[in-house]
Amino acid sequence: MANTLPTHPFFNVQHSPIGAFASFTLGQKGPNGGLGIQQGKPADEPVYIGLESRDDANRFDALPFYDGRTSDEAERYVSENNLSPKMDDHMLGGIPGVETYLFDDEQISRNLTAARDTWTAGDLTFRIITPVFAVPDAEAESPDHDALRLATCPAVLVELEVDNTACDRARRFFFGFSGSDPYSALRQIEPEDNEGIRGLVQGQIKGLFAEGQGIHGGRAFGIEPIIRPWRGEGNDRFGLGPVGLLFGDAPAGKKTTFRFAVCFYSPGVVTTGQDAVYFYTRYFDGLESVGRYALEHFDDYLAKADAADAMLDDAAHLNDAQRFQIAHTIHSYYGSTEFLDLGTAPPLTHDGRTPCWVVNEGEYRMMNTFDLTVDMLFYELRMNPWTSRNVLDRFIDRYSYTDQLHFPGGSNDHPGGVSFTHDQGVTNHFTAAGYSSYEVTGLRGCFSYMTCEQLVNFICCVAAYDHATGDHAWTAKHAGLLGDCLDSLLNRDHPDAAQRNGVMGLDSSRTGNGSEITTYDSLDASLGQARNNVYLAVKSWAGCVLLAKLFERFGQSDKAALAGEQAERTAATIVSQADTDGLIPAVIVEGSVAHIIPAIEGLVFPFVAGAREAVASDGPYAELIAALGKHLDAVLRPGVCLFEDGGWKLSNTSINSWLSKIYLCQFVAREVLGHHDAQASQAADEAHAGWLLRPENTYWAWSDQMHAGVAKGSKYYPRGVTSALWLDEAGNA
Amino acid sequence: MANTLPTHPFFNVQHSPIGAFASFTLGQKGPNGGLGIQQGKPADEPVYIGLESRDDANRFDALPFYDGRTSDEAERYVSENNLSPKMDDHMLGGIPGVETYLFDDEQISRNLTAARDTWTAGDLTFRIITPVFAVPDAEAESPDHDALRLATCPAVLVELEVDNTACDRARRFFFGFSGSDPYSALRQIEPEDNEGIRGLVQGQIKGLFAEGQGIHGGRAFGIEPIIRPWRGEGNDRFGLGPVGLLFGDAPAGKKTTFRFAVCFYSPGVVTTGQDAVYFYTRYFDGLESVGRYALEHFDDYLAKADAADAMLDDAAHLNDAQRFQIAHTIHSYYGSTEFLDLGTAPPLTHDGRTPCWVVNEGEYRMMNTFDLTVDMLFYELRMNPWTSRNVLDRFIDRYSYTDQLHFPGGSNDHPGGVSFTHDQGVTNHFTAAGYSSYEVTGLRGCFSYMTCEQLVNFICCVAAYDHATGDHAWTAKHAGLLGDCLDSLLNRDHPDAAQRNGVMGLDSSRTGNGSEITTYDSLDASLGQARNNVYLAVKSWAGCVLLAKLFERFGQSDKAALAGEQAERTAATIVSQADTDGLIPAVIVEGSVAHIIPAIEGLVFPFVAGAREAVASDGPYAELIAALGKHLDAVLRPGVCLFEDGGWKLSNTSINSWLSKIYLCQFVAREVLGHHDAQASQAADEAHAGWLLRPENTYWAWSDQMHAGVAKGSKYYPRGVTSALWLDEAGNA
Repeated sequence: MANTLPTHPFFNVQHSPIGAFASFTLGQKGPNGGLGIQQGKPADEPVYIGLESRDDANRFDALPFYDGRTSDEAERYVSENNLSPKMDDHMLGGIPGVETYLFDDEQISRNLTAARDTWTAGDLTFRIITPVFAVPDAEAESPDHDALRLATCPAVLVELEVDNTACDRARRFFFGFSGSDPYSALRQIEPEDNEGIRGLVQGQIKGLFAEGQGIHGGRAFGIEPIIRPWRGEGNDRFGLGPVGLLFGDAPAGKKTTFRFAVCFYSPGVVTTGQDAVYFYTRYFDGLESVGRYALEHFDDYLAKADAADAMLDDAAHLNDAQRFQIAHTIHSYYGSTEFLDLGTAPPLTHDGRTPCWVVNEGEYRMMNTFDLTVDMLFYELRMNPWTSRNVLDRFIDRYSYTDQLHFPGGSNDHPGGVSFTHDQGVTNHFTAAGYSSYEVTGLRGCFSYMTCEQLVNFICCVAAYDHATGDHAWTAKHAGLLGDCLDSLLNRDHPDAAQRNGVMGLDSSRTGNGSEITTYDSLDASLGQARNNVYLAVKSWAGCVLLAKLFERFGQSDKAALAGEQAERTAATIVSQADTDGLIPAVIVEGSVAHIIPAIEGLVFPFVAGAREAVASDGPYAELIAALGKHLDAVLRPGVCLFEDGGWKLSNTSINSWLSKIYLCQFVAREVLGHHDAQASQAADEAHAGWLLRPENTYWAWSDQMHAGVAKGSKYYPRGVTSALWLDEAGNA
Repeated sequence: MANTLPTHPFFNVQHSPIGAFASFTLGQKGPNGGLGIQQGKPADEPVYIGLESRDDANRFDALPFYDGRTSDEAERYVSENNLSPKMDDHMLGGIPGVETYLFDDEQISRNLTAARDTWTAGDLTFRIITPVFAVPDAEAESPDHDALRLATCPAVLVELEVDNTACDRARRFFFGFSGSDPYSALRQIEPEDNEGIRGLVQGQIKGLFAEGQGIHGGRAFGIEPIIRPWRGEGNDRFGLGPVGLLFGDAPAGKKTTFRFAVCFYSPGVVTTGQDAVYFYTRYFDGLESVGRYALEHFDDYLAKADAADAMLDDAAHLNDAQRFQIAHTIHSYYGSTEFLDLGTAPPLTHDGRTPCWVVNEGEYRMMNTFDLTVDMLFYELRMNPWTSRNVLDRFIDRYSYTDQLHFPGGSNDHPGGVSFTHDQGVTNHFTAAGYSSYEVTGLRGCFSYMTCEQLVNFICCVAAYDHATGDHAWTAKHAGLLGDCLDSLLNRDHPDAAQRNGVMGLDSSRTGNGSEITTYDSLDASLGQARNNVYLAVKSWAGCVLLAKLFERFGQSDKAALAGEQAERTAATIVSQADTDGLIPAVIVEGSVAHIIPAIEGLVFPFVAGAREAVASDGPYAELIAALGKHLDAVLRPGVCLFEDGGWKLSNTSINSWLSKIYLCQFVAREVLGHHDAQASQAADEAHAGWLLRPENTYWAWSDQMHAGVAKGSKYYPRGVTSALWLDEAGNA
C-alpha cells in the first residue's frame, strides 16, 4: 500500500452504540464533539482527556478537544472584580502552580479502524471501541435476548492507557466533558460504600462510567479544582460549574489500562405520531445499569471489535484510502441508527411492543428515508438483514399509497398504482400513514415526490433481501403486492401497453401538476428529474429483471413474462440512446446534454440479488451491459465526469457529487462491468478520502454531498456504507 | 402619578404557568424569547406574530420577535445555486409578491400588568394572560382537585385581536414559533375530522393550541409558504423547515378575538437524585390535554387575571414605577416555579406521591435556595402559604445537618448545632441529604457555607408562616427542632454564655478552616462575610424575638427567656456600635468602614410575623429601632448609599446592588421605620425601573444583582417578589 491515510488526525468520527441514535463524536479540535443524542450534528461539547506530565506533577497535558480554558462560567457568580475580594482561585480553576496545557499537534497520532479509534500523545493512549456486529433478529420467535442486550446496550467503550514505565511516581489522568443538554445537571454517581461503578453523567441521558479502581468524579468551573485536592474535605459534592471529570492515578513504573463506558439513555416515550420507546429499555432501566453492563462485558465487546477490524484488515485488495472510508462510513452509519419498540404508553410494558428499526438521515433526521434504505441495504444484509425486512414491513404496512398519473401538462386521469413514501417521519416524529415529511405537491424540484423511484427501490430491496436471506416465505406473503408494484411500474411508462418504451413517462398525481424527482434532489435535471432519467431507467430495468425471477418462483408466469418484456423494452430504449461515442444522455428521449456516472448504478441489484446472469457481458442483456460499459469508459475522463484531483464527478453538468453513490458506482464499475484501472482507482479513492479530510468538512464526520470536494449537504450522514460493497470485491490491486 | 412607565416596550417578560418551570418569554427584539422549559434563560426562539396589511393583501406585518428573515435553513437542502435550477421559490419562503415586514418600533405599544401583557401594533393586538392566583393546598386531607387542576395546568393564554372594522375583506393573521428543543420535531396536531383543537407543537414538550374557528397549522422554511396557499393540495403536511405557524382569517368589517393556549409538558421522571414527575401529570397526560383544558377554561383564567390585575390597580399608593416592578417580578417569579410530585418510578402512579414545591434560582437553577426562600416567603404567604411550609418540611426532613464550630484560626472543637443547606439541588438534580449543590469547604468567599444565615432564615420563615396561617399545630410539631435552632444560634455567638454579645462569632466546621458567608455572596466583606455582620445580626435579633414568642406559646419559658436575652444582647451590641453620625459599621466589632442599607433588613420579620411591638419606636427595642432609623438616615445620601440616579446602593463600598433586597429594605424603611420622603422614594423607584429597562439588561427579564444599574448576576431571577410587600403599605403618596 503506497500511502498512509489519513493525512492529519483532526477530523470528527462518530462513535455510536447500535440503534441508540447517539454518538460520542471526537476528532475535530475544540469543543466540537462530545456526547450527542438524537441530534443531526455533534453535541458541541468540550471533552477533557489528559494526563499529568512525566516531568512535572503540576503540569497536565490534554488532547485538544476543548478550547484550553475552562473557567469563564464562574464569572456568573463572582463579579465586580476590582472592588470585592477575588473568589478563591481554585474555584475558578486556577490552583496556584497547577496548569493544564493542550498537547502540541505534532505529539498526537491517531489510528481509525472499523471498531476502534486510537489517539496517542506522549504516554497517554485513548482508544474508543464501538460495537460493530450483527443485531440478532428481534422478531424471531425466540429472540436471543442475551445477544440482543449485548448488541443494543447504549454504550461505547474507552480504554485509557498510561505508559508510566519511565516514571517513578503515580500520575493522575482524567476523562470528562461539559454537557450540552439544556435541561439537566451534570452529576456524579459515586457509591456510598465506595464499591461498584462510578459515573459522571448529565441528567438521565448521558455520561461516563468506570469501575472502582480508585476512579473518582468531580465537578467544578475548571479542570484543576477537580484533579488537584483543595483545602478542606468533601468538596467533591460541589454541584455547579460546567466541567465534569472522572479521574484516577496510574501507578508508577508500569503501563496500566483503565476502562470507561460512555453511555446514553433516553427514558420513556421518545417519539410522536406513534409512541415508541428505545428497544434497549427492555434490558436497561437507566444510565447506571447501562454503565454497569457495558463495563462487565468489556471483554465481549473487545472480541467483537477484533472481528470487525479483521473484516477490513483481511481484505487485502483494499488500499488505505478505501479502508479509511469504509471505517469512517460505518462509524457514521451507526450514529444515525435508532432501534425502537413501538407501542402505546403509559404505562410502559414490553408486552405487545413491536421492534422498529430506524435509520435517521444524518443532519436532516428524516426517518427511514427510502432512497437511503436502498443504498444502506447492502451493509444491513451483510450484518443483520432482518432490520431491512423490518423497515420494508413498515413501508408496506403504513407508508404506502396509491396514485394516478399525468403526462407533462396533462391531467391526472391515467391509472397509477402503489408506491411508497420518501420517508417515515422526521426527528422522532412519525408522519401520518401514507405521507412522508419531505414530499410536497406542486413542485418540479427539491421536495417533490419520488413516487417512481421509491417504487423501484422497494422492488430492489425485496429481491435483495429475499436472495440474501433465503426468507422466501416472507417474500411469498407479499406476492400480491409485488404484482401491484409491477402494474404500478408499467402504468408509469405509458397507459397504452403498445406505446411503452420501458422508461418512466408519467408523473404522479401526488405532484399535482408538478413532476417527480429522484434521490438526487439537489442536482440539476441530469439526475434530479425522474421522468426519462437513465439512472432511474436502469434501476427500473433491474427491478423488472428481479420481479420476473420472483414471479417465476411464485409460479406466476404471466406476470414474469410481463416483467421480462418490460425489462427488455427498457434495455432496448437505453441502448438505442447511445451516441457515436457511446455516451448515453442523462435524460433520454428528451435530448439532454448531460452525462452521468449513475447510469450504471442500477446494475448492482441483479448482481447482489441473485440475477448475475442479467449483468453478464454474455448474458441476455449483453447489449445493455456493453452499452453501459462503453458509456462508463466515455464519461470517466478528465473534463467529463472526473474532477481534476481524480475524484468522480457524478454528472458532467454539476459539481455536486455524492460519495455514497460514487462508492456504489465504483463497485459496479469494477465488479460488475470489469472496469479495472488500479492507478486511476487508487487516485480516485485518495481524492475522495482527501475531500473528507478537508478542514471545511472535518466537523461533520462523514458527509455525502460534496461540491467539488466541499460538503454542502447530507452531512453527518449514514449513507456512506455503500462502501462496504468493496469488501466483497475479488481484488485487483 | 407623574410618569408613564416603561419608557420603551422592548424588554423580555416571562409568561409562565404556575409550577411548570416554563416560560413563554417575549419582549426583547429578535429571536430572544420563545417557549422555554427547565432553562435558566430565554429559549432564544423566533416568535412569529403578524397580520395581513389593511391596504395590501400581499403584505404582512409582524411583531419584531424574529430577525425578519426565515429561509436560510432551506439552503441545507438546495445548493449549487448557479448550476442547478433554483428550488421553487415558495419552498424558500418567497411567494412572488408576498412579503412580510416587521412593524416599525413607533407603531408598537405595550402594557404590562400582573397577569396581562398587551402588545398593540396597527390593527393587531396580542395579549398574553398568565395565571397569577393561589395554588390550593395539595397536602390538605381532601385537596380541591378542580382548583389544583386550574392552578397547575401548564399553559398561558393568548388573545389575538384583529380590529378589522375599517376593512371590507377578511385578513389573515398568524402566530407561531421556531422550536429550540434539540431533540424533537415541530409538528401539527390537526384533527382528522376538522373538529376540536389544533396545535403547532415541538415534540412532546411545548407548543401552541387554538380552538377550531378556521385555524390551521403549517410548517415550512418561511412564513409565506404557510400563510399563502401554494400550488397543489395537501402541502400542510410538509414536515421540514424551522417555521411553524397557526393561522386564520379575521372576518371583514368587525373586531374579532382569537384564543390560543401556549402549552408546556414534560413527561415522565424529570429529576435525578430523587425521582419526581411534574404535579400536573396528575391531571394531564400530554400537551393536547393541556391545550384542550386551557382553552375550555379560558374564561376562568380571564376572571383570575382580572383579580390579579386589580391587586395592583387597587393599590392607589403605588407609583407607576412600583407597579411596573411588582408586575415584572411576579412574572419572573412564576418562571422559576416547579411543582413536582416525588415518588419512585416506573411505573408512574400517583399513589404515595408527595407534592414538592420548588422555586429554581433563575439563571443558576439551584432548587429552593434557602436565602431566596426567605425573601420570596412574603409573596408565597400572600398567595399560597402551604408552599412555604412544603419547602420548610423538605429542609427539615432532608436538607439539615449538624456541625461544630471554630473561632477564626482555631480548630473545630466547639459545639455547633443544627442548620440547613444553602439549596436542595440544581437543574432538576436533588443533591444528597444534608448537602447543597453550592457550598464548598475551605473557602472564605463565594461558594462557602451559609450555615448561620440559613439557620436564621429557617427561624424567620417558621415564625412568619405560623403567624400568617395560624397553623400552630405544624409549628408545635417542630418545637423540639426550634429549641435546637436556638441552641445552635447561641453556640455560634460564643461557647461561653457569659461572653456572648448577640452576634455570630464562630464559623461552621463545614467550612473547614474557612469562614461563612451570607446570601450577599459576591459582595465584599460589607455584606459577604457572615461573622459579626450587622445584616445578619439584625436578622438574628429578629429570629430570637420571634423564637421567644413561640417558646412562650409552647409554654417553654426557660427557652423563651434565653431567646429574649439573646435578642437583648444583639440589640445592645448593635446600638453600641453606632458612631457619632449614627452610622453602624457593616461588620461590627471588627471596625469595618463599610456601611450598608441591609442593616435594617431583618426588621421585616417581627413586623410580618406578629411581633410588631418589637419594631415599634416606643417598644422594648426602641433603642435599636432608633439606632437603625438614624443609620438609615445617615446612609441614604448621595455618595454613601445612593447612586447618582437616586437608586439605592446597598453598600457604600460596592457598586453591586440587589433589587430584591432594595425592594425589601424600601418596605422596611417606609413601613417599619416610618422613613417617608415621597420625592426621593419615587426617584429611587424610577431609577430601579430604569435599570431593568437598560438595553444591556432587557434580555434577562427581571434580574437581581445590578452593578451600577447593569445586570451582572442573578439574572432571569425569581427573588424580586419582595416587591409585593409594597402592596400592604398604607401609602404616603
